[in-house]
Amino acid sequence: MLVENGLELLDEDESWALLRTRSLGRVGVTVAAVPAIFPVNYAVVDDTIVFRTAPGTKLDAAADGATVAFEVDDFDVDEKLGWSVMLAGRAEEVHDLEMTFRVVDIGLEPWAGGTRSHLVRITPMFVSGRRVVRVTQKGSRAEGP
Amino acid sequence: MLVENGLELLDEDESWALLRTRSLGRVGVTVAAVPAIFPVNYAVVDDTIVFRTAPGTKLDAAADGATVAFEVDDFDVDEKLGWSVMLAGRAEEVHDLEMTFRVVDIGLEPWAGGTRSHLVRITPMFVSGRRVVRVTQKGSRAEGP
Repeated sequence: MLVENGLELLDEDESWALLRTRSLGRVGVTVAAVPAIFPVNYAVVDDTIVFRTAPGTKLDAAADGATVAFEVDDFDVDEKLGWSVMLAGRAEEVHDLEMTFRVVDIGLEPWAGGTRSHLVRITPMFVSGRRVVRVTQKGSRAEGP
Repeated sequence: MLVENGLELLDEDESWALLRTRSLGRVGVTVAAVPAIFPVNYAVVDDTIVFRTAPGTKLDAAADGATVAFEVDDFDVDEKLGWSVMLAGRAEEVHDLEMTFRVVDIGLEPWAGGTRSHLVRITPMFVSGRRVVRVTQKGSRAEGP
């Protein structure tokens, strides 16, 4: 197990496995040289991340063709344990009806009431994950869930 | 109440109030034109965000003097309700001992076992918040916590 500064480094398989367990993530984009972070509902499709967004939003404008970050985590604040998975890749709007139906069929739906008719797909260049490793007072190790 | 595409827009006071209720957030930086997102433990000090990071990390390298994003959210996946607050601002390393002690005194501590001896402070240019507003089938409105 590789540990870097108190964080266990997760391999790619484990990172993807964790990504598949969640449905809420955060997209990081750079709009006019200013970074921004937006929560999105997502689905994993063929080792890519797919999410819906509204036309005309900053996220929509920034995401198509841009390099974006995507992050999912799960932390227990009381226990001080948890993990995060981060990836970066090119975002592209999906115009493919087959992919659109696949995503609808696996239940990807935005929560809010507005119109989110753009489907964006992130194809990762790399995926990395970290888990908080706790060293107890007696020197034995407690690990995150 | 301003509603934009199914999301209630929160004012600055409400956004800060929500930021003060949490201790885990996410920093968005751009490293060599690629966006990245890192979870951090943070504290709110005088309407700024303060967090600890390790020397030599990407976050440390990117954060000092850079414009960064910071995001906190709380979503209930089952209820499909929640909120997010996002800000962007200039990040600077804190070299001030008084500020360092104030942050230590309010209990800001990193979870992982490694060394996180750099203190970074984000002074926001803007703060914005959104809450998921749900329209029920009968047309009445359900709101997030």
